[in-house]
Amino acid sequence: MSVNQSLKPITWENKSGKIFIGGCDLEELAEKYGTPLYVIDEATLRGICRDYKEAFKEYKNVKMMYASKALCTSAIARILDEEGFGFDTVSQGEIYTVYKSGVDMQKVLFNGNNKSKNEIELALDLNVGRFSVDNFYEAELLNKIAEEKEVNVDILLRITPGIECHTHEYIQTGQIDSKFGFDLTQIDDIVSLIINKYKNLNLRGIHAHIGSQIFELKSFGDEVEILIKELSRINKKFGLNLDEMNIGGGLGVKYTENDTPPDVKDLAKVVAKAMHKYSDKIPTIYLEPGRSIISTSGVTLYTVGSSKEVNLDGKIKKYVAVDGGMADNPRPSMYQAQYAADLAAAKNVQTEKVTLAGRYCESGDILINEIELPHLECGDIICVYNTGAYNYSMASNYNRVEKPAMVLVNNSQSDMIINRESLDDLISHDCIPDRLRK
Amino acid sequence: MSVNQSLKPITWENKSGKIFIGGCDLEELAEKYGTPLYVIDEATLRGICRDYKEAFKEYKNVKMMYASKALCTSAIARILDEEGFGFDTVSQGEIYTVYKSGVDMQKVLFNGNNKSKNEIELALDLNVGRFSVDNFYEAELLNKIAEEKEVNVDILLRITPGIECHTHEYIQTGQIDSKFGFDLTQIDDIVSLIINKYKNLNLRGIHAHIGSQIFELKSFGDEVEILIKELSRINKKFGLNLDEMNIGGGLGVKYTENDTPPDVKDLAKVVAKAMHKYSDKIPTIYLEPGRSIISTSGVTLYTVGSSKEVNLDGKIKKYVAVDGGMADNPRPSMYQAQYAADLAAAKNVQTEKVTLAGRYCESGDILINEIELPHLECGDIICVYNTGAYNYSMASNYNRVEKPAMVLVNNSQSDMIINRESLDDLISHDCIPDRLRK
Repeated sequence: MSVNQSLKPITWENKSGKIFIGGCDLEELAEKYGTPLYVIDEATLRGICRDYKEAFKEYKNVKMMYASKALCTSAIARILDEEGFGFDTVSQGEIYTVYKSGVDMQKVLFNGNNKSKNEIELALDLNVGRFSVDNFYEAELLNKIAEEKEVNVDILLRITPGIECHTHEYIQTGQIDSKFGFDLTQIDDIVSLIINKYKNLNLRGIHAHIGSQIFELKSFGDEVEILIKELSRINKKFGLNLDEMNIGGGLGVKYTENDTPPDVKDLAKVVAKAMHKYSDKIPTIYLEPGRSIISTSGVTLYTVGSSKEVNLDGKIKKYVAVDGGMADNPRPSMYQAQYAADLAAAKNVQTEKVTLAGRYCESGDILINEIELPHLECGDIICVYNTGAYNYSMASNYNRVEKPAMVLVNNSQSDMIINRESLDDLISHDCIPDRLRK
Repeated sequence: MSVNQSLKPITWENKSGKIFIGGCDLEELAEKYGTPLYVIDEATLRGICRDYKEAFKEYKNVKMMYASKALCTSAIARILDEEGFGFDTVSQGEIYTVYKSGVDMQKVLFNGNNKSKNEIELALDLNVGRFSVDNFYEAELLNKIAEEKEVNVDILLRITPGIECHTHEYIQTGQIDSKFGFDLTQIDDIVSLIINKYKNLNLRGIHAHIGSQIFELKSFGDEVEILIKELSRINKKFGLNLDEMNIGGGLGVKYTENDTPPDVKDLAKVVAKAMHKYSDKIPTIYLEPGRSIISTSGVTLYTVGSSKEVNLDGKIKKYVAVDGGMADNPRPSMYQAQYAADLAAAKNVQTEKVTLAGRYCESGDILINEIELPHLECGDIICVYNTGAYNYSMASNYNRVEKPAMVLVNNSQSDMIINRESLDDLISHDCIPDRLRK
């Protein structure tokens, strides 16, 4: 079993009814740092990194690139760097974050469907290792800027392989009708342009990413086959020797007991099998796992506040509100995502079905619809699982609420890795024109 | 016609093909401040404030409370304060913002389904005028804190009138199955508790809010009738003289040509008509408009970047990417919201149907699906209308992208009211534990 198949962090323990993660008592963490609190378990994070390395160890040329958009902070970048991962980045903000945390920028890939001139300039100035060129416009722009800077840029071509994997349509990215990448009919044109015109672009290979939270390994196999064949075809047609293939990320995680994400080892087997259809030498493979790397290691702690019962034609529905919600975790409202949760300190009381509501002034702010939990009281600490990915990274200040803190737990120690925002942070970018001052 | 019925800011002008708002050339604003850029037109904002005041001027006891959650910044608070509005706030962050901008805190109401102890303490310390008490738990907590601080608190009771208005289910709040408020069967219990037990709570009236982006005035009429009857019933039953009634907000705006929001004057008529069924003296009415106050005054400017054509079984679909998207405007992905847009400087070229995509690494990041615009080229400035409400207020740093700046335009002058975030802002809350430092 690989870590992404676990609903809870791998260090999860129940000691006499109290839940510990990374050796830390969740109630004590809530007490010390306040709530809402994002908690990242270092052992779980390093565990899945090692699962990936172990699963793919037979292939010497595999490069693991963490998809930073799942969660990009300086401390997380340090851990991934220590684990030997490179970084898939999608903005100058992500590039800047990994740069400031001391990452070798040659291990960084710059992705995205609309990189701006400023971003490209920063990426070139910081010597980012690879650009995944998304479209004709970008190829021309990138070449022009590289020419001005008198540098050559190693690039991959982002292509849409035409695969429709089963996941939420928002995070399905490999289908033909996509804002991302070149479709297969455009590849020859862009390769010709690079060879004949864009002299500062050094084509190294191709890249695809079919989506996110994928459970069907077949989609990955299909993708690799398409990429392998395409790479071979391009090499033959243009007399090239491209030897890099970025197959993106997308492996799923276990948000609830009903989710059955595949083992990383099985992903490796499917990729290997599809690879064997490649007659020439095996190319360098880039993998870009994001969610599957960071999701399971993260939990969010909330404090229970108010509760309310409504009578729906005789059926009682109970709402229990916590001190966070759609601003720290927009996934339930954005993707109808489901989560599992526990009480941080179990009580010997009867369980009941409740709806965990958030604190934000909007009916859509429901964290978990109908979950069976011990009878909750004000002040109880709730732990929501699998919130490492796309929670902090998508967090807003809706209702002008401060973004929560994040702590890293390991060996019974906890360290702050993101400071909680203050009230003054909330107004730090506000300005009042003189004529409006009181 | 009231301002909320306009798709564009009321100062919108087309001068020889160039669009001006507040007397400012949109292309020049984009050049000066960069994009994405939120622009707020002061005349439009003050215009709708005056529409509300004019429409309700016959009722001496009407209090306008701007629902800050639509857009809460220091400068906007100053303008609303100058227009004589009070503030409906839903967090300590909003309370702190209006406090720091010099608002008389007696004009502030504190709303929300799960106010924390800290927030209640801050609100009491800052002498907030009214609390809208949402549930039994809060009533007890608030009374306890008020007792400790030896203060009396003026409160309204938030009730759910059981009205299902036609709007997106996320922003429908008056139905029975809601996390907000007391339902009608619970009112006598809470009133008794306040009278007999919660001696530091001073009950002044009742409050409801049925939802947001509402086009049917009948819903408001029904709401007022229910509230009026309920207020009268409570007064009679408990021998009280409650004379405050907060009917919330929710009036719609015109996001696209297909939207037909009502005139504020007609809202006033409906409210007045329902009020006449009240036999005793007319209570003080609080109104909490948010979206209808700020939406129309706001536009967002984006710069066109890459574009891409896909062939869908013979039909060509064109994606044009801009330099913003779901992080600065999550409404299309969150609520399937639709928007209208123009090119900032019209060109004498044929129009074409395009899909405006954002820059974020996610297929769901589409700003506008299929819109007819002049042929767009890289560098063109796009103006998306009606982005004043729930855009900046719900903005995130997804993909670690800096939040945009906001400028206020008026009489051909532009003033920064929110500074653009910097790369260093993005990492300003990150910390790296010593043991992970390189």
